[in-house]
Formats: sequence, structure tokens, C-alpha cells
Amino acid sequence: MSKQNTFTPPWRKTAPKEGSWRSIFKWGDPLGFKSPGDRLYAELKEAFNLTDDDFQERKHEGDGPVECPDTKALSRDQVKAFAAIVGEDNMSTDAYQKVKYSTGKTLEEAMRLRAGKVDRVCDLVVHPRSREDVEKVVALCNDEKIPIYVYGGGSSVNFGLRPSKGGVTLVLNTHMNKIVEVNETNQTVRVEAGMMGPAFEEALNSARKNLKTEYNYTCGHFPQSFEYSSVGGWIVTLGSGQNSSLYGDAYDLCLGVEVVTPRGTINTLEYPGTATGPKVLDMMKGMEGTFGVVTAVTWKLHRHRPENRQYFGFLFKNFADAIEAAREVTQDEGGMPSVFRVFDENETDFAMKMYSISGSAADSFLSLRGYKAENRCLFLGSSDGEKGFAKHVKKRVKKICKKHGAMYISGYAQKLWEPDRFKHPYIREDLQDFGILSDTLESSLSWDQLHEAHKAVNGFMASRPNTMYMSHSSHFYPQGTNLYYIYFIKTDDIEEYRAFQDGVIDAVSKSGGSLSHHHGVGKMIGPWMEDHLGSEQMEALRALKRHFDPNNIMNPGGQLGIDITTRQWRDIE
Amino acid sequence: MSKQNTFTPPWRKTAPKEGSWRSIFKWGDPLGFKSPGDRLYAELKEAFNLTDDDFQERKHEGDGPVECPDTKALSRDQVKAFAAIVGEDNMSTDAYQKVKYSTGKTLEEAMRLRAGKVDRVCDLVVHPRSREDVEKVVALCNDEKIPIYVYGGGSSVNFGLRPSKGGVTLVLNTHMNKIVEVNETNQTVRVEAGMMGPAFEEALNSARKNLKTEYNYTCGHFPQSFEYSSVGGWIVTLGSGQNSSLYGDAYDLCLGVEVVTPRGTINTLEYPGTATGPKVLDMMKGMEGTFGVVTAVTWKLHRHRPENRQYFGFLFKNFADAIEAAREVTQDEGGMPSVFRVFDENETDFAMKMYSISGSAADSFLSLRGYKAENRCLFLGSSDGEKGFAKHVKKRVKKICKKHGAMYISGYAQKLWEPDRFKHPYIREDLQDFGILSDTLESSLSWDQLHEAHKAVNGFMASRPNTMYMSHSSHFYPQGTNLYYIYFIKTDDIEEYRAFQDGVIDAVSKSGGSLSHHHGVGKMIGPWMEDHLGSEQMEALRALKRHFDPNNIMNPGGQLGIDITTRQWRDIE
Repeated sequence: MSKQNTFTPPWRKTAPKEGSWRSIFKWGDPLGFKSPGDRLYAELKEAFNLTDDDFQERKHEGDGPVECPDTKALSRDQVKAFAAIVGEDNMSTDAYQKVKYSTGKTLEEAMRLRAGKVDRVCDLVVHPRSREDVEKVVALCNDEKIPIYVYGGGSSVNFGLRPSKGGVTLVLNTHMNKIVEVNETNQTVRVEAGMMGPAFEEALNSARKNLKTEYNYTCGHFPQSFEYSSVGGWIVTLGSGQNSSLYGDAYDLCLGVEVVTPRGTINTLEYPGTATGPKVLDMMKGMEGTFGVVTAVTWKLHRHRPENRQYFGFLFKNFADAIEAAREVTQDEGGMPSVFRVFDENETDFAMKMYSISGSAADSFLSLRGYKAENRCLFLGSSDGEKGFAKHVKKRVKKICKKHGAMYISGYAQKLWEPDRFKHPYIREDLQDFGILSDTLESSLSWDQLHEAHKAVNGFMASRPNTMYMSHSSHFYPQGTNLYYIYFIKTDDIEEYRAFQDGVIDAVSKSGGSLSHHHGVGKMIGPWMEDHLGSEQMEALRALKRHFDPNNIMNPGGQLGIDITTRQWRDIE
Repeated sequence: MSKQNTFTPPWRKTAPKEGSWRSIFKWGDPLGFKSPGDRLYAELKEAFNLTDDDFQERKHEGDGPVECPDTKALSRDQVKAFAAIVGEDNMSTDAYQKVKYSTGKTLEEAMRLRAGKVDRVCDLVVHPRSREDVEKVVALCNDEKIPIYVYGGGSSVNFGLRPSKGGVTLVLNTHMNKIVEVNETNQTVRVEAGMMGPAFEEALNSARKNLKTEYNYTCGHFPQSFEYSSVGGWIVTLGSGQNSSLYGDAYDLCLGVEVVTPRGTINTLEYPGTATGPKVLDMMKGMEGTFGVVTAVTWKLHRHRPENRQYFGFLFKNFADAIEAAREVTQDEGGMPSVFRVFDENETDFAMKMYSISGSAADSFLSLRGYKAENRCLFLGSSDGEKGFAKHVKKRVKKICKKHGAMYISGYAQKLWEPDRFKHPYIREDLQDFGILSDTLESSLSWDQLHEAHKAVNGFMASRPNTMYMSHSSHFYPQGTNLYYIYFIKTDDIEEYRAFQDGVIDAVSKSGGSLSHHHGVGKMIGPWMEDHLGSEQMEALRALKRHFDPNNIMNPGGQLGIDITTRQWRDIE
């Protein structure tokens, strides 16, 4: 570690200017920040051979006003027709809106906007007020063959909302963001698709007081993007939250959808289990806007009882032992933990450094006990549910972890993690202000594929000099888990970044894991889909696509790899 | 109750003759019997105004040899082509095989066979040996436009395997009935689709000894038809087993399929949770043979630990209280019971009479405590899983049931039920030998639909004089449950039976519940599907049908309502 620790880089602590590029690419709250601490700063300098001199001045902050060429792809009559549906107040051809609602949260988009360059933008932004508005817009677009893209919360990290073919972007969170009804008997809530995570969760947490229900509820779904993603987005991208091991993925939590397709509006049935053929609801889960617009969702509720939560944490001698314990926990049928995270050797060392454990007296003690740096692994989590259940789960986890050689380190680390859990993305802007890129990719894996995949993807990342990388498993099923790969590189060059990012995707693809555990596919990973699923399965998706959207107006231009067979989606007109 | 109880009807205790009609329609083991006891006999006489004189002689036993007209729909060249694929030994145009493998277990089929009449039969029975055989047969049939029907275990109760358009019936359980591989790391098993329940379960239960695994396993899926149904059948019909509340339905237990469609063979991916678009696996679940032939299945295993099982039983003052308790148990997040059954007032009274509790001293005691006949309801079940979990679930269930006014009646009744649980269907032949029909229909329901649906369907059944009926809920989800309707009527007339059966389906359809919880749709319920799902959803199924099976050779003629829009499926040529 660096010995210099008196200098702190000028991490930015001011909100982006209104109307600026930065106001679009910056994550989250304009006044939300999570700057690297001294220890991470020292790590970064060492990893990238940098000195304090390299951190004197922020670069490419994107403070200039957003500009964008006038696209004029829509005729005046077409624009008038949209105005007749939603009203002039609910649409815009303004450059700022067009860029904002055409941009997700990929690093590549941020790099471009920092340079004052725009990627593809839509021709018109529309803020529908209701399902009826959406139906009329979809019908108009279908008649006129105008592409439609949907902006939910805007947190896509794979160009999911990139308007590759121009057209109209529908912003669902402006108006269509309310709870329709809580059905306490069925323990479900009907919600408009544009409702954002925090408003949704707050309404459910305070249901007793505000909705006069018997219990308070939780949506049970807390992806990293929770604060800046919408309920509809969770379902169409197959999201997975930090509590998925107990509550399930968005796939499991969704009981029904209302979806407007060019072929008509569908309200799926909501029986809890029914033997009446393949389920149209399932066809909509993960369709990423390519079949239609999800306008409302029926979501399964869980009781909100944070007072029942039990925290735990363990240190294992190595990753293999930690994974074996995790596998036993999920396969033992003693009840699943709620949050549940196993860090690999690299991420454990990283965490130990961040919390100043590395090199300390505690470290010597741990090493003596056999929990040595570069091998040891953290295993953190918590259990939820009815109190006795939550306690039983913790007790069981403890017993299994000890059997696999773990040291119990109390629930302290997990309690530290919890309140900060949505803050991590804020660090991205600080790093990028100094040319350091941090990105993530992830993969779902059967247990028996895990270690080989981990080795293969690490091997690729290690092949690039001066690359920091680490990973963890954070979603558990009796049949497997995920690996969440994190890397840090230093470059200002988009092409260099792209080549590395594509290389990681390639490595994931060849590793035997799935192409995505919960980020979805978007246009970024679309080109790998044909190889991954095989042409027979891709053709089944295309058959549904042709059925629901015969004119290919719904999110065309590479999404899910459904309408491309080349990796050159970026060049599609 | 009748006072005469010295007479016992001559319930048949001999196996059907080889080659006879009865050998086809009789349920299960040729030497398996479960005749009505004295108490049920007395009940039946009372319900249908019968005397011992009506039970002197069995009628229409179907002991004659099976006959069936020669169909000759296939050309000699076509038959030769099939022989070239599977070999002469693995195909048959013999009348007995044709009738046997064209017949499921509906009452209507039994009534017809008892009268020596055949329904539609296939033109050729084929016993494929492998996926390759199936691929060649499907390709040949697709080229020659010959319909294909699949016979798994033959227990369909909705004409699922009726060859409405003739052609070829593939029997999967003859050769394709083996475990391919147990993957203990992933806790999965790969199995050929024709493997029958008992062989599958026995192999898993004895895995430590015979497969050298660390643990013994259970398939966790025990439908009423368990002994006479196949793994592939469970999935394509969306079956649900008696332990579904803990282990899930077939839908949940299936991780992957290999399916041969006219468009090609698909092996679905088997990641435990993945965000790579809508899942082709889901499109295959419930497709009832209309898209292709499932040839192999990857199934999720559970540990086999019967020693951990905890039994419980309660008596509630009324059905509403019992259902409220059941709802709280499933929504409380304290862990789900495994088997879990709530009997309505009628089925409770029926059970009380069967066990001689009605009218006894115990009955007086129960009545005094407020558990009165015609209102009281039984709630029986058991918990499974890791021992501490199973115990916690029982403790929790007890607490919740007491809160809802229940009396604990120990696990005795549930323990009585367990060993006999696959025997109930045997009683059907005994009753039908004397012109009494017993049939069942079932429906999935949200909690808030349950009581109205129950009332509506009961209302219809009550409208027919001399009809005994009862129902129970036996599959539980946080969002709802099922109702399993059972009725007994006395008639020899197929048309009268059909009219009543159609009336019950109509009543279920109008009750707000789903058309089927776990029996599937088949051709019997197919005509109700368009109304039930709505044309937008039916058209989505048809889009997949056109994709996978453009020539409509896979189970054509009414299955799932996919290729009909009329209720006259029986007359389809």
C-alpha cells in the first residue's frame, strides 16, 4: 500500500448543473456521493501505477449543456397525432429530454456524454398518462411503423433503452407510477409499471397506517438499482434483488401483468398455480420491451418485519469451502436465508483492506488460525420472515458453516453493509473523473460449473495488465448461484474499454455460465444470444416476436439479439 | 344411515382377464382393489335411494375381448417406414394395443369400454427406444402429415391422449424409462420422459446404496396418479403432487427438458435463475404434446428424510375458519407444510361417517364443544425437510390453528391417510360395476375467490337430485389454493353423465376459478379455453403452435382448445 496518505483527491461534491451532460450520466441523487476512501485510493494508485499527481484535477466532467442534432424523422402530422393522444404537455422534442430518455447507465454511454457526444436518440419523448394512452400510441406507431422504446427507471446497463432505430421513447415513471390496489387477502398489490422502487416500498412499509391494512408489507425486491428502477422494468428484464434467496427473483414475485402489444392488450390470469397450458405471463417475463409495453403488474407481497431480521457473518479458509457451505445451506431444506453473499478471495482481500484489517494485529491472528490473505473468504447474510423461522435459519447456517471450517465473525459486517447497499454505484463518477473505469458483468451458474467459470473469467481479466478484479455470489438456489464479476481498469479510450468489456462477455459466454443472471441482455449482450440459446430457442422467441409485434416496432435494433445476427448492433440504422 | 348392514355387495376381487376391455379401463394394479366399506355402502344406498337388491349383481364388467375395426389409414409404405425406424418388434397394429394406448382414465372412456365400444383409436402404436427414434418418427410424420399422440403413463382424465385424428401413438414408458444421471452437486436428476413415478422414486430413495450418492433423495412429486403416470407427463400437463405446498408443482420442480418438435430438437438451458429472455422451458410446461414430444427431463431433487416428518390434524368449527387458518399458515413466512389438506363441510362429514365418528359418543362431545356436524371441517397435514424446520412448521401451524378456534386432533388421521393415498381411484370400478359414477374436477383460486366459487359449484351440483358432492383444498400458495370437487351420481347413461360433467365444468368456468389446477386441459376442457384465457392469449399459444408444429401433427383435434373453436371436439375427424 502507498505510504502517502495525506493527499485526498478533489472528489466532486457538487451536483451536476441543470441541463448538463453530467446531470444525465451521473448515478442517482444529484447530491448523492460515495467517494473512495483513503484505502481504496491507495489501492487504485498501486494497481494502476499512479501517483497523487494523476489525481490533481478532474477531467471530462460533462458540465456543458446537452446538445443534440434535430432528428426530424417524424412528420408534422405524426407529431400532431401523438399530441392528440397525450397532449402537448406530455411530449417533447427538446434535446435534453431526448438525450436523457435515450440513455441508460452503461459506462460507454457515460464516456460518450462526458465527451459531449450523443449516441442514438429518439425523435420524440412521450409521457403517457394511462394504459389508454399507451394503447393509442402503440396503435399509431404500429400503423405508421414508428419504433417504440420504453424508459422505466433508466438504470439499464446494457443499452436496453437505446433507441437504435429512432422513433418514440415512452417514459412510464412520469405519470404511470401509482399503486392501484393492495389485495391483502391474496397478499398482492396491483401497481402501475412506472412506479419506482422507493415509492413502492415506502407505500407498502406503511400500509397499516396509510392503506388501513392489517399488516405492513415489503416488495421483497432490492436490486442494486432499486432506487432508480421501476416495477415494470424489474419484470421485463428479469431482475433479482439482494433478498432473492428467500423471496425469489422478479420472475417469481410477479403474479400477473397487463401488457399492451401491437396485437392487442393482454391481462394475464392470476391464479396461484394452474394447469391450463403454457403461461402467457411467462412469455412476457424477460421480453425486454420487444413484445409490448408492460403497463401494470400484480406483485406478490411479503410481510415487513425488519425486527425479526437475524444477521450473521463467517470467514472461511478458502472460496471452495465457503461455496460448499453455501450449497449445503441452500440444499439442506432448513429454510433459506434472505440476503446471502459469498465473496471470492479477491473481493475478500479488497474488503479486508477497505476495513483496515489487512496488516493489522487482527490479521496476524486470523492468519495464525489458518484464515490467510489471498485465500480466505467472507460469507455474510441475514435471515427474514417469521421470527422463529428467521432464528432457525441463522442457527442452521451457523452449524453448517462451522462444519465447513468457518469462523463466526458476528453479524457486524452485514449490519455495516445494509444501510449502504444502494450507494455503491455513486463511486463510479468519482473514479471516472480521473479516467478509472469500474464495471460489472454477471452470470448464473449450476454449482458444478462455478469454480471452472470463476477461473476462466478471472483468467481473462488477469490477462490484461493493471486490471483489478474480484467477484461474489449473491443469489442462491438449490441448483446453483450467480457470479458477479467486478473490474477496475484505467483508460479514457472507448474502443479499449469496449474491447475489454466484449472480452469479458466472451469469457463469460465460454465459461459455461449464462450470459446474465439479473442485468438482462439488452443490446449489449444480444449478439451472444444466438450462440448461447441455440437457433431453435432463438427462433421460438422470434416466433413470439412476429406474433405480438409483426412490424418490429417494439424496441427494435438488437434487443435480446432478436432482430440481429451480427455483433455490429451499434451500427444498425 | 341404513339399518341393514349384514349384506355386503359382491365387490369384484379378481383381476381382469387378459386382453379384456376391463384390463384397459381398470385403474392401476390388476390385483389392486379398494372396495367401499359398510359405511360408504350405507351412504350410497341412502343417497341414491337404493336397496341391497340393487347390489346383487355386477353389470357391464367388460370381460369380453377387445375388438376394434381395422383402420388402415396408413399406407403399407408408411408402416414400412416406421418399421425401418423402430423395428417390427416395437410397433403394433393389434386391436388390443391400439385401444389400450388410445385410452385414458376418464369415466366416459370406461363407460364406453364397458359397453364394448371403442372411441377413436390410433392407426399404429410405436414404442420408441431413444430420442433418435422419436426424432425420426417426428420427421417422418411431419413429412407425411401423420398425427402423433403420446402415451406416458396413461392416467389422463381429460382425453389428453385421445387420438382424435388417428395416426401414431408413441408409448414412452416401454423403453424410455431410465434415469440418465443423478447430479448430486446440483441436486438434479436427468431422466427419460417415460419413467414412471414409482420406479423413479424408488431409485432416488435408494440412491446412497445403488447410485453411491451421499444422500438419499425424493422426487417430491406425488400426484394421485403417481403410480401410473410418467415424469414427462407430469410436466406437459402441469401436474401437482400431494407435497406441493413445500416442494412446488411440476412446473417448479422441472429445471430443463429435451423436446423433439417438428421444427427440431431443443435442450433448454438449466441455469437456476437467468435473465436471458423469456424461457423456452416455460413454453413447454403445460403444452400437453401440442408442440412436440418431451423425451428427457432434468428434475430438481429433495432430500429423502421421512424420519423428519411431523404430522398434525385439526378440527375447525367451520370451513371459513379453516381456510383463514390455512391462509395465515401460507402467508406467515414461518415455513410451509408439505402435505396440507382442508376438507369442506361435506367432505368432513363424509370422513366422519366413514370413520364412525358421526353419531358416536365422541360426536356428542365434539358437538358440545361447538364442532357440529354439517359445519365442522378437518385440516390435516404433515411437514418435511430438515428436522428442526419440520418441527418449527408444525409448532407454527398449531399456534395459528388454535388462534382460529381449532381443536388439535393429533397426527393420527394424517398417518392413516398416508399409506392409502394412492388407493382411492380403485374404488371407481367397484362403484361403476353397480352403475354409480364418481368423478372429480378441480380449479385453482385466489383466496378472495374461494368461498364464492365453492358456493357456485356446490350450487350447481346440488341442483341435480340424488347427487353426493364434497370438496377439499389440497395445494397451498401464499396467493391462493385449489378446490378439488368430487361427486357421485347414479346413472348408466353416457349422455346424462356428459351433460352433468359439462355442467360442472361450466360452473367451474363461471365460478371465477381456473379451469384446472393440476388435471390439465386435454380435449375435455379445451372448448372452454378460448373464453377462459381470452383470444389474445389463445392466439399467443397458437403462434407457438404454428412455429413448433406448422403441420399440426402434434396431438391435434382439440387439445388445449388450440385447434378448435367449438365444443364439438368429439366429432372432429
